[in-house]
Amino acid sequence: MSNTDKVWTAALVIIGDEILSGRTQDKNIAQIARWLQVQGIRLGEVRVVSDDMDAIIAAVNALRSEHDYLFTTGGIGPTHDDITVDAVSAALGVDVVVHPEARAILADYYADKPGGLTEARLRMARVPEGADLIPNRMSGAPGIRHGNVFLMAGVPHITAQMLDALTGTLEGGAPLLSETVGCWTAESEVADILRQIEKAHEDCQIGSYPFFREGRIGANFVIRSTSEEVLQSAVDTLCEALGEEGYDFTPGGI
Amino acid sequence: MSNTDKVWTAALVIIGDEILSGRTQDKNIAQIARWLQVQGIRLGEVRVVSDDMDAIIAAVNALRSEHDYLFTTGGIGPTHDDITVDAVSAALGVDVVVHPEARAILADYYADKPGGLTEARLRMARVPEGADLIPNRMSGAPGIRHGNVFLMAGVPHITAQMLDALTGTLEGGAPLLSETVGCWTAESEVADILRQIEKAHEDCQIGSYPFFREGRIGANFVIRSTSEEVLQSAVDTLCEALGEEGYDFTPGGI
Repeated sequence: MSNTDKVWTAALVIIGDEILSGRTQDKNIAQIARWLQVQGIRLGEVRVVSDDMDAIIAAVNALRSEHDYLFTTGGIGPTHDDITVDAVSAALGVDVVVHPEARAILADYYADKPGGLTEARLRMARVPEGADLIPNRMSGAPGIRHGNVFLMAGVPHITAQMLDALTGTLEGGAPLLSETVGCWTAESEVADILRQIEKAHEDCQIGSYPFFREGRIGANFVIRSTSEEVLQSAVDTLCEALGEEGYDFTPGGI
Repeated sequence: MSNTDKVWTAALVIIGDEILSGRTQDKNIAQIARWLQVQGIRLGEVRVVSDDMDAIIAAVNALRSEHDYLFTTGGIGPTHDDITVDAVSAALGVDVVVHPEARAILADYYADKPGGLTEARLRMARVPEGADLIPNRMSGAPGIRHGNVFLMAGVPHITAQMLDALTGTLEGGAPLLSETVGCWTAESEVADILRQIEKAHEDCQIGSYPFFREGRIGANFVIRSTSEEVLQSAVDTLCEALGEEGYDFTPGGI
């Protein structure tokens, strides 16, 4: 495999009892997945773990060597349940230090706010030794990068700001292209067609996602490839086959 | 620890390229987490893996012995990308067989539908040898139980039906109770209060979840305990402390 063919992958560790209790609906998986696609990086695995040192350390160490990049979300705020920096530092085998630039950013941000830069707020300047900051225009508290490990906020729109700051800075490969074809049919009716088309096209995966809408059964077929040519050929073949069988289908998806 | 104090835990493996690509917003984590809470079972870890045999086998085997129960979602449909039954069977070291009752259910369901019980549809009757079925009134295709492993659908409202069928059938412990107190303040202002109250109450965790709403900063504090008495004491202490400091807070959450 030449270097240009390398598939870049990332893993994501979501840290938060609020996700595991079902209290909070996670939005970071989809948000980070879509952002990574644009960078030419595929999200290879996600783990959701509780606010527990050992659980975070185990997940970070299992995934950071297996993937080109590791992202975490959650647990970098000012309260006692925010232990991500401590856990990741332990996983990396480095000390926790106060980052001078982060302290300056927080001092500035809290200068005109009640209480000023309290000890709790100063917790947000703590980083694994050797880390760089990821800017966050929203709330002052920065994200953190240490080697291939990126610590992001739990609040999705703060994470969005941090992703924005990282856009274009990570090396990636050819982005995975995709096209969707929607069809008003039970996916089980066209299972053979899908299998044959995927088999006939190298570097092509077809996913089938059924739905029930407007009282009818349908499915969207998502065709993915890193090659525009292969993708187009697979989409054309699929539409032709669905048309021949008389199905009601919609390129672009339903 | 007496048997009544045992904390029952479950893990969840979400199988699906559509989640890892960001195309589909996962809803099963929150849905299954909330259902488990009612059964007195805590969701301890979630992994999202791709439609890949080795990845599914690794996740299932890592988690099924660590937890009392293991749930999977996704990959039990009729198409070529539905490989969960094969992967879980390999993980359990058992053969894949056609379950006679599942075949009968599907034959009945497809009797009056175009094509009838095709080979693709019959795939949905395949189970790991020794498995029982989990009824699904929605689409005929059943969920699957093998020992402590439960294979559920990827489509959230089908999974909801399967959870409904399982309600009350799994052994669990004391449900984790929770109360929320909302407060119009930066969580960093009250970090000390939260830490002290958590420390003063055994069997009590307090999570802090900041938000930005109506142009104001606030946070919800979620207090969790298996003891109603401990929970109430922690909530009362928190409300008293917030009141003394003059904060605008709301029992029940904002």
